[in-house]
Amino acid sequence: MARIVQKFGGTSVADADRIREVAKHVAWTRQNGDEVVVVVSAMGKTTDELVRMAEDVSSVTPGRELDMLLTAGERITMSLLCMALAELGVEAASFTGSQAGIITDTTHTKAKILEVRATRLTEALAEGVVPVVAGFQGVSTTRDITTLGRGGSDTTAVALAAALGADRCEIYTDVSGVFTADPRVVPSARRLQRISFDEMLEIASTGGRVLALRSVEFARNHHVPVHVRSSFTWEPGTWVTEEDPSMEQPIVSAVTSDVSEAKVTITAVPDRPGVAATVFRALAERAVNIDMVVQNTSWEGLTDISFTVPRAELVAAREVTESLSAEIGAREVLVDEGIAQVSIVGAGMKTHPGVTAMMFETLAKAGINIEMISTSPIRISCVVRAEAVDKAVRALHDAFGLGG
Amino acid sequence: MARIVQKFGGTSVADADRIREVAKHVAWTRQNGDEVVVVVSAMGKTTDELVRMAEDVSSVTPGRELDMLLTAGERITMSLLCMALAELGVEAASFTGSQAGIITDTTHTKAKILEVRATRLTEALAEGVVPVVAGFQGVSTTRDITTLGRGGSDTTAVALAAALGADRCEIYTDVSGVFTADPRVVPSARRLQRISFDEMLEIASTGGRVLALRSVEFARNHHVPVHVRSSFTWEPGTWVTEEDPSMEQPIVSAVTSDVSEAKVTITAVPDRPGVAATVFRALAERAVNIDMVVQNTSWEGLTDISFTVPRAELVAAREVTESLSAEIGAREVLVDEGIAQVSIVGAGMKTHPGVTAMMFETLAKAGINIEMISTSPIRISCVVRAEAVDKAVRALHDAFGLGG
Repeated sequence: MARIVQKFGGTSVADADRIREVAKHVAWTRQNGDEVVVVVSAMGKTTDELVRMAEDVSSVTPGRELDMLLTAGERITMSLLCMALAELGVEAASFTGSQAGIITDTTHTKAKILEVRATRLTEALAEGVVPVVAGFQGVSTTRDITTLGRGGSDTTAVALAAALGADRCEIYTDVSGVFTADPRVVPSARRLQRISFDEMLEIASTGGRVLALRSVEFARNHHVPVHVRSSFTWEPGTWVTEEDPSMEQPIVSAVTSDVSEAKVTITAVPDRPGVAATVFRALAERAVNIDMVVQNTSWEGLTDISFTVPRAELVAAREVTESLSAEIGAREVLVDEGIAQVSIVGAGMKTHPGVTAMMFETLAKAGINIEMISTSPIRISCVVRAEAVDKAVRALHDAFGLGG
Repeated sequence: MARIVQKFGGTSVADADRIREVAKHVAWTRQNGDEVVVVVSAMGKTTDELVRMAEDVSSVTPGRELDMLLTAGERITMSLLCMALAELGVEAASFTGSQAGIITDTTHTKAKILEVRATRLTEALAEGVVPVVAGFQGVSTTRDITTLGRGGSDTTAVALAAALGADRCEIYTDVSGVFTADPRVVPSARRLQRISFDEMLEIASTGGRVLALRSVEFARNHHVPVHVRSSFTWEPGTWVTEEDPSMEQPIVSAVTSDVSEAKVTITAVPDRPGVAATVFRALAERAVNIDMVVQNTSWEGLTDISFTVPRAELVAAREVTESLSAEIGAREVLVDEGIAQVSIVGAGMKTHPGVTAMMFETLAKAGINIEMISTSPIRISCVVRAEAVDKAVRALHDAFGLGG
């Protein structure tokens, strides 16, 4: 008998039919003799609708109240799913984040889980009841309702799997796993059977949208095997697990792309110690997330500093850099919204030299100019023109032989 | 400085505009220097929509899960209202039934309040924060979410007013108070300025829909003055308070009617001790609520027993009586769905003989036959044909001089 956490995202529970389908699958898993804990997101576009209601009512949306509002979403899904399970003769009970013991800090709208006190869930399991838990939500140390921010339901599922000593965490979504590239861009993209936590982290942080970064970090830190799969086909998907040292790793596992960033360049900055520190300290204070940073070689004592930021934080980034421009003696601040990032990710890269060269050659052969470069031991990312990014993904997918 | 509980029903918070209107009124009350605790219902038809979703998903709707589902409704209203208050510069914080300390028994979908532990609300008030509380909901002694059933939000408001020692409880609704009769039936009906708890109880139990019976009982038992008024006109409404013994009471305060019941008659029952007991014990065991009961004079050792029940419980009542029919030796069971009840209510009745006679004369003069009669010290109710009930209400309203 295995203990399994099954998480169903918004599209998986979008309407009454989908909820009944999910109930059937949960019932079937239990009939196989396994223990199941279910985690659900809000139905379909519910969260977006609730946000729109808030914006209709008020121009101010305090975090505490926004969290109270949004947590209505999972509440609806989980109670409906319990009813559908009851109809199938499966005894189930819904639990809010608070009832499930998801204790968080007090940062509303993006709280961090501090502790999981899953007593009520283990009691339910002991009584043969299927606990259905609200994803995305918790209760703070000051007893207020919190939400976990983006990808919060995945994080709830992995955190519960860790706390309950589950054998695995199944993340059901509307795609059938993790692919070598986005199949909408690369028709020959293949589903990966298995990928390591480290590779999945790099994929999630460079534009792969299947799993939220935080949940992968949590799974890696707590050694929770994650199975990403489809609730529409129910076929086996992709396992995200520890790296298996006995097996040879693929040099490149996946090609990803990200068009959500913009580039800021501060030109002709005097090249002296402390200038970069001043700029990035000021950006950090405005909570601007910096991704890549490049500084050119100095020429006549002047240099250019370029960095990429999420487009949503571009206004803040521009304000900070422009207001510092005079102080640091820079010429001007240039903003470029026409960029995109293409990355290759693979655990085998660590032991295979020449991958970087091959990536650059491939992009060159395709006539694509590289504007910025950043690397990790298992990833290489290049900034290119946004309009060239799909071509870049296809060329790299092809060059590294990832096709089906 | 007064401490006021303000409760806003579903129509009062039906959309973004209404919620902003309510926020303005709460802000204005605070500016007058009063302390406010707000209680809200679910927006407009939200509760009905959630029930429909449940029925779409499953033919079984366990009470625990139905309660979890329905409590999403007030959660949405209260967080939106807090946002609207924030925009007006009023610091507010929402509290679920559980957070507000509404402790109930474990009877899902119609829980009873056992205790109010309003610590978090008094803390909020001490900090100058306006608590906005979810009506209709609580948490059971076994830490499950419960709802209070029909009129639950009114009950929450009155219970909080009692627990917080509030000076008054204002119930905002879509009518401007308690009227001498339903203005849709009697155009000359007047709004009452003041009415006693006992009269209000009789009105609520004989078809007046302004206040739920339970909340009036609670207000009477805890001596909470209730002010029923409109959130659309904001004009002063009707005060429901203790009877003022120094003032002469009106003989008749209001005429009410109720078309929600049906009549069951068991004919030719042997008139011996224990027969009625057998019937009504069996009905009680099926949780059928009996309103009026009439037993005819015995004729040749046989009698007829008639009683009225809510139409929703008619199927159960019929099953019970038909299955007992043979055992008690009755001839047959007759069901009449064509009845209605008309009542006059007035505290002055206690000291004025002749009111009953005047009621009967009035109905006779209008050509309306009386089928059953039931009285309390301050109420007389008659069962009449359903099609005659509006005419009966108008005739009585006129005869007792209640017109404006």
